[in-house]
Amino acid sequence: MKHKRKTDSPRKRATTNKKAGLPPGTLVHVGEIRTPVPAVQVMSFDTDALVEAVLPDAAAVTRWQAPHPRVWLNVHGLQDAELMRAIGQRFGLHPLVMEDILNTGQRPKIDDYGDYLYCVIRMFTWHENTRSVEADQISVIIGREFVLTFQERPTGLFEALRQRLRTPGAQLRSRGIDHLAHGVIDTLVDRYFTLVDALGSAAEAMEDEAAESPAPAVLRRINNLKHELLTVRRAAWPLREVLGTLVRTEGGIFSEATRPYLRDILDHTLHVVELLDDVRDLLGDVLNIYLSSVSNRLNQEVRVLTVLTMLFLPATLIAGIFGMNFETLPWAHATHGFWLSIGLMMTTAVLLAAILWRRERRQRT
Amino acid sequence: MKHKRKTDSPRKRATTNKKAGLPPGTLVHVGEIRTPVPAVQVMSFDTDALVEAVLPDAAAVTRWQAPHPRVWLNVHGLQDAELMRAIGQRFGLHPLVMEDILNTGQRPKIDDYGDYLYCVIRMFTWHENTRSVEADQISVIIGREFVLTFQERPTGLFEALRQRLRTPGAQLRSRGIDHLAHGVIDTLVDRYFTLVDALGSAAEAMEDEAAESPAPAVLRRINNLKHELLTVRRAAWPLREVLGTLVRTEGGIFSEATRPYLRDILDHTLHVVELLDDVRDLLGDVLNIYLSSVSNRLNQEVRVLTVLTMLFLPATLIAGIFGMNFETLPWAHATHGFWLSIGLMMTTAVLLAAILWRRERRQRT
Amino acid sequence: MKHKRKTDSPRKRATTNKKAGLPPGTLVHVGEIRTPVPAVQVMSFDTDALVEAVLPDAAAVTRWQAPHPRVWLNVHGLQDAELMRAIGQRFGLHPLVMEDILNTGQRPKIDDYGDYLYCVIRMFTWHENTRSVEADQISVIIGREFVLTFQERPTGLFEALRQRLRTPGAQLRSRGIDHLAHGVIDTLVDRYFTLVDALGSAAEAMEDEAAESPAPAVLRRINNLKHELLTVRRAAWPLREVLGTLVRTEGGIFSEATRPYLRDILDHTLHVVELLDDVRDLLGDVLNIYLSSVSNRLNQEVRVLTVLTMLFLPATLIAGIFGMNFETLPWAHATHGFWLSIGLMMTTAVLLAAILWRRERRQRT
Amino acid sequence: MKHKRKTDSPRKRATTNKKAGLPPGTLVHVGEIRTPVPAVQVMSFDTDALVEAVLPDAAAVTRWQAPHPRVWLNVHGLQDAELMRAIGQRFGLHPLVMEDILNTGQRPKIDDYGDYLYCVIRMFTWHENTRSVEADQISVIIGREFVLTFQERPTGLFEALRQRLRTPGAQLRSRGIDHLAHGVIDTLVDRYFTLVDALGSAAEAMEDEAAESPAPAVLRRINNLKHELLTVRRAAWPLREVLGTLVRTEGGIFSEATRPYLRDILDHTLHVVELLDDVRDLLGDVLNIYLSSVSNRLNQEVRVLTVLTMLFLPATLIAGIFGMNFETLPWAHATHGFWLSIGLMMTTAVLLAAILWRRERRQRT
Amino acid sequence: MKHKRKTDSPRKRATTNKKAGLPPGTLVHVGEIRTPVPAVQVMSFDTDALVEAVLPDAAAVTRWQAPHPRVWLNVHGLQDAELMRAIGQRFGLHPLVMEDILNTGQRPKIDDYGDYLYCVIRMFTWHENTRSVEADQISVIIGREFVLTFQERPTGLFEALRQRLRTPGAQLRSRGIDHLAHGVIDTLVDRYFTLVDALGSAAEAMEDEAAESPAPAVLRRINNLKHELLTVRRAAWPLREVLGTLVRTEGGIFSEATRPYLRDILDHTLHVVELLDDVRDLLGDVLNIYLSSVSNRLNQEVRVLTVLTMLFLPATLIAGIFGMNFETLPWAHATHGFWLSIGLMMTTAVLLAAILWRRERRQRT
Repeated sequence: MKHKRKTDSPRKRATTNKKAGLPPGTLVHVGEIRTPVPAVQVMSFDTDALVEAVLPDAAAVTRWQAPHPRVWLNVHGLQDAELMRAIGQRFGLHPLVMEDILNTGQRPKIDDYGDYLYCVIRMFTWHENTRSVEADQISVIIGREFVLTFQERPTGLFEALRQRLRTPGAQLRSRGIDHLAHGVIDTLVDRYFTLVDALGSAAEAMEDEAAESPAPAVLRRINNLKHELLTVRRAAWPLREVLGTLVRTEGGIFSEATRPYLRDILDHTLHVVELLDDVRDLLGDVLNIYLSSVSNRLNQEVRVLTVLTMLFLPATLIAGIFGMNFETLPWAHATHGFWLSIGLMMTTAVLLAAILWRRERRQRT
Repeated sequence: MKHKRKTDSPRKRATTNKKAGLPPGTLVHVGEIRTPVPAVQVMSFDTDALVEAVLPDAAAVTRWQAPHPRVWLNVHGLQDAELMRAIGQRFGLHPLVMEDILNTGQRPKIDDYGDYLYCVIRMFTWHENTRSVEADQISVIIGREFVLTFQERPTGLFEALRQRLRTPGAQLRSRGIDHLAHGVIDTLVDRYFTLVDALGSAAEAMEDEAAESPAPAVLRRINNLKHELLTVRRAAWPLREVLGTLVRTEGGIFSEATRPYLRDILDHTLHVVELLDDVRDLLGDVLNIYLSSVSNRLNQEVRVLTVLTMLFLPATLIAGIFGMNFETLPWAHATHGFWLSIGLMMTTAVLLAAILWRRERRQRT
Repeated sequence: MKHKRKTDSPRKRATTNKKAGLPPGTLVHVGEIRTPVPAVQVMSFDTDALVEAVLPDAAAVTRWQAPHPRVWLNVHGLQDAELMRAIGQRFGLHPLVMEDILNTGQRPKIDDYGDYLYCVIRMFTWHENTRSVEADQISVIIGREFVLTFQERPTGLFEALRQRLRTPGAQLRSRGIDHLAHGVIDTLVDRYFTLVDALGSAAEAMEDEAAESPAPAVLRRINNLKHELLTVRRAAWPLREVLGTLVRTEGGIFSEATRPYLRDILDHTLHVVELLDDVRDLLGDVLNIYLSSVSNRLNQEVRVLTVLTMLFLPATLIAGIFGMNFETLPWAHATHGFWLSIGLMMTTAVLLAAILWRRERRQRT
Repeated sequence: MKHKRKTDSPRKRATTNKKAGLPPGTLVHVGEIRTPVPAVQVMSFDTDALVEAVLPDAAAVTRWQAPHPRVWLNVHGLQDAELMRAIGQRFGLHPLVMEDILNTGQRPKIDDYGDYLYCVIRMFTWHENTRSVEADQISVIIGREFVLTFQERPTGLFEALRQRLRTPGAQLRSRGIDHLAHGVIDTLVDRYFTLVDALGSAAEAMEDEAAESPAPAVLRRINNLKHELLTVRRAAWPLREVLGTLVRTEGGIFSEATRPYLRDILDHTLHVVELLDDVRDLLGDVLNIYLSSVSNRLNQEVRVLTVLTMLFLPATLIAGIFGMNFETLPWAHATHGFWLSIGLMMTTAVLLAAILWRRERRQRT
Repeated sequence: MKHKRKTDSPRKRATTNKKAGLPPGTLVHVGEIRTPVPAVQVMSFDTDALVEAVLPDAAAVTRWQAPHPRVWLNVHGLQDAELMRAIGQRFGLHPLVMEDILNTGQRPKIDDYGDYLYCVIRMFTWHENTRSVEADQISVIIGREFVLTFQERPTGLFEALRQRLRTPGAQLRSRGIDHLAHGVIDTLVDRYFTLVDALGSAAEAMEDEAAESPAPAVLRRINNLKHELLTVRRAAWPLREVLGTLVRTEGGIFSEATRPYLRDILDHTLHVVELLDDVRDLLGDVLNIYLSSVSNRLNQEVRVLTVLTMLFLPATLIAGIFGMNFETLPWAHATHGFWLSIGLMMTTAVLLAAILWRRERRQRT
């Protein structure tokens, strides 16, 4: 059974716009259902205390009272429209935001809704066996006292961050919610470095393939990898803008003290894009190597033809000469005439082979 | 009979400028007549009520009294100059706007005439059998209390929107005319996703063709598809500007509440352009595959030549050897001499074929 | 005799800078003399009346009294320095403007001299037989009460405009001189559409040539056409800036009412550049087709070689086999031995040809 | 002996940074000594009078009293540090300006030092025999009452300007020093047109070479010419900025009246860059022609092989057939059997040649 | 043993983000330890006096009293976290700055922290034997009274600068700390010229390799060099921005008098980028030469095949002719018949060889 994924490239366009024709604001999860039961994990904390809870359904979300002022709510699985509506209402989110969270084919972007910021970031998982990436849309909503994260399925991405938050006396708790938001975004951007490594290794592996067996299948593999790369690049590129906006916006949700940290993530984002461009250059080189290998293969093929011709044509001529019907044919009556002629053929062949060998060696140096 | 279309690419340039030389403001429909009788559908509504009418001619347009304040007037077919003039006068449109509506080779654009906005958007229909797109120019005029849409022929595009408008209590009725205008533009932009799907499928189909039979006709088909794609891209690209202008303009026809919805369409437009770029990349790859297939074909051709030479040249040599006129020729007087020599030829051929086969298998891995 | 033209591309660089070294302001016509006697046509008009005159020489220009306030003066042929100086003095033109009018190798541009605007626009005539364009520089000077047009030779470009002006009660007369200026520029921009058609047709014609006979001469023709295209594009591109400046400048010679008409021409200009880019893309494809045809030609050449080898090499082997000097050669003593062997050769040839034919047909599908 | 030049391309990188490590402000001439004795020519003038002098050394520069307010000082040869320092002190130049004048590997630029402007412009001399350009850095300093020009060696560039200045009553004298500065820059920009002509001719000459003998040496020559071209383009490109700055700066050294003349030179600069781009396009085409010629050469090579095979293989078969050892061989006992067989061979050859000829002619059309 | 380096290209991605997951502000040196013991060299000076010291550890840094107001502190080796923390605290550096200094994979950048500027610049060392560059990150912190420089290992880069500072009465001492900062940056930018020279020489060396032996290994070497070049370019490009920011910022740490010197370095940076682009163009040409050489090699291969066929096929035919079994074979009974036929073969061969030779010579000219 073919694994079906969301639309990131023309090769995966099936569900491009399931929603076309519906009025805006209709909450339908566009994407496949990836997690059996959606899970809402919530952490409420201030400098001194932290409480964790799992909210099973829409009712629980509405009922739940946060014991501490700051809240981080993380959702895995988006197919329960009731639950999503409850979360949207509780935190006062705009219908379009809810729609974008569910419609998981968004470009990375940041929208400022005054009371909160809405970020869309795409994460990728590299599958070594199919040499392809799988995309996840992560929505991050940053309010004055809450951070909401929405994922299509459990990824374990935020586990390290959660551990740091659980540590009593962590800066993450004392420094305000914008510090937590920074941590979330930093975690997401850092994942791109792992991805760049995987793509780079795959490209290098292809370099050898292209040089050794320039078959059309290899060309396809190169093209496929290029598409995966461009998909990632297209998701990484707008991150510059997202983070640039965060860095430049003054007097917003992010305090002056967090600004240098955001600038630092922005630097990482620029670095990621540069590394992706490196991999793209590398793939361009692989294509060149492929095309050049095809040509070299032809050269070798023609060389084999030349060698064959060189070895057999002169011998055939010699045989033809001694097959002429002249009365006085040299060696014709000699006892070893036949073997002399065979010897002549072999000498010629060896001589020509020697010439050929020297010429070839000179070229290969 | 060849189907004639409007100018979207150099391959369809025939009617580029039928109007050249006429003074500006002359109402002539530049484009072919596509619909037997133009039809004017008009809907007048407010929050509570909606009246529909079909206006058959210019006189009816002038006479008609709108029972409700908000009006959506849609025109199919543009060849009745009288009718067009009546509409223009009734809604106070600038002569140049009327001219642009009729002159259906416009670039997508938005012009602000103070009391109303004039948008030109191009729609495309994909014809699977000719692997080409057909263009329609849709003109949208957005006033403070009316929306006018002009199409060259009935397309059924707006039927879903009309149904939503007919539903009593629909937001589309209560939220002001700018909400309807949003619906019209949203419908048009959403059509591009369908188109991108069709183009993407066509490109993928070509990938296989290019790999399997690299004939010049395939190259032409690739080029033709690329032209169709660039035609669409050239129509989609200015939509960014059109929607960007709508999003940025403050204090205009669009209310603050509709702004996020426009921003949403803008995001879709950016996404469309990206998907089109993906298809273009894919076509670039198809071209590479084509060229590489031509080279591979040559390699195979030369290999066949090499194999032939390898199989027959040595055997010919052996035959030549036993045709030499020596007195003491081995096997000459043996009863089965002839068959021994044939056996020698065959052994040589099989041996060489085995060497060849191993070499080939090594390369193909 | 070779027809000599002005410098628009490196292939026609001869007269690039005849004036180099002279002090600025020296009136010398750089370009060839194209019209035997320069002709000055002048039209003086207001809403109700129009008077036309032809001024034969400098003295007539100085003497002539315009009976009506608005004047359109058109000059064919620029080689009479005396005449040009008289015109310059009468309308108070800056020496540099006069110099640029005569030095017909200018880039299209617009210069604002306060009292008047100076536009340079390049026109092109397509010569079907040489598949090349011929350039004309048209200078347009737009004052508050006059429009001056300077052409190197009579082109008949403005005849339609003149007819419209002669019509009593024409808007062109009543709406102010800026409306006439709009008409002049509109006429010039519209000519580009005809040119685009001609270039597009030439490019399409080459597509077939490139596919059928990929000789070096065809490559040269493709390159030449590309140069002509780039020449035109280089003249069309700055028109965007020229018209953009006209549209943006507020409170100048053009009234607020003419502004939308200028914006309309600007749209046409953008469209022209897009169409030229289409033709350029098409030429790029033609080049690809050419190169691919060269490769296909090689494939065919090698196939012929393969077929020849396939047909004759096996037969030669059979002949060799029956030429061996064995005592017991099959069929040697049979009456029809010879014809049997010939039959064997033919059977082999037919069999191999059949295999080849099937393989080829499979590839061509 | 190899001629050594300054660093303009990676092929001439030797003296890239002779000064690296020295403190800024050290006056060392980086470049080779090109003129045996530096010469300082000075012209002092006002509207009515002009005095010329040659200042042999630093002392003379310090002593010299300008009899008239306006001064043009021109220096050939920069290796006399003493002399340069004297000039710098006399006109109050910043140490960095003096350093840049001597360090002749600068990019073209303009620096505003308040009291004076410092322009660096690069001139090129085309050497037909080596098909290469030689670079000269010309420094121009424009003060309120003086113009200083520094050249590495006498070039005779400014002789025409000097003659115009010597003419009594010349505008160049009466209109202020900015008019002279304009003349200097105009002279330098005009030289580029000559250069473009030379480069264009060289590129056209290569077009024929590439088509006729596609040897690797030709490819090298194409690449070399491209490098020269890019060197020139890199020097011409920043001139746009230099002149744009001059045109835009208001209330500086250049009076309002000179502004249009500067705008005129700016137009020339834009034109030069466009012409250089034309030559670059032309070289790109030459490269295509070269590569296509290599392919065509291969096609011809294979065609020769095919023709050879076609002519000799069938004849060999016929000879083989009549060499078979059948008892009843046709024509074997006929008197003219031998000649009949030779005739058969020739007929076959002529027939095949005819087929080949027709096929070839069909392709070449 | 393979030498391991920091991540500058996808080929050296190993340590891309060792720190991923750690909270920001953790001081860990990301990079390898290059220097056995970190060394802190400090120079304290004013116009008249200068004191030097080496601070062995964190305690020494904290204890040390600067005898003069201006301080230059240089660190070799970054692995001692204690020491780094002490320096950071003493000069009041932001934790992120400390982190960036240690995390040696930064893009070149400049951050303004109000009291001080933080610059990251990358230096490269060219290794001739591996034809690769090794990167060092140099961090420069410019405060109002101090300059701090951090290097991963001793490079001897600043030795010349230190000597100039030691000279009594040097401008470097009297002109303020911004003059020293200029000297540091100038030294770093000047190193790029040396690097450009090395890369250019390597590229030129490859030009010959590519022309003479177009083996796949050469293509790999070309690609590798291109990667090294792009790595350097990617580090040089942001320097424009770094220096542009320094030049533009008014009223900061750099005084008005130092501004022209910074503009001078900016010019050098632009020049470096241009020279790198030259080398890149050169490498592009090398690639073209490589590909063209592969084609030429094929042409030669086919030519050898043609020559072989030309020499042996006609002779084989002649042998076949005299091997035909006709009763009346010319020369059959002549004494020297055999040698006559051999002579005929040789004559044919010589004749054809002559034709071939002339044809070849005509092509090679």
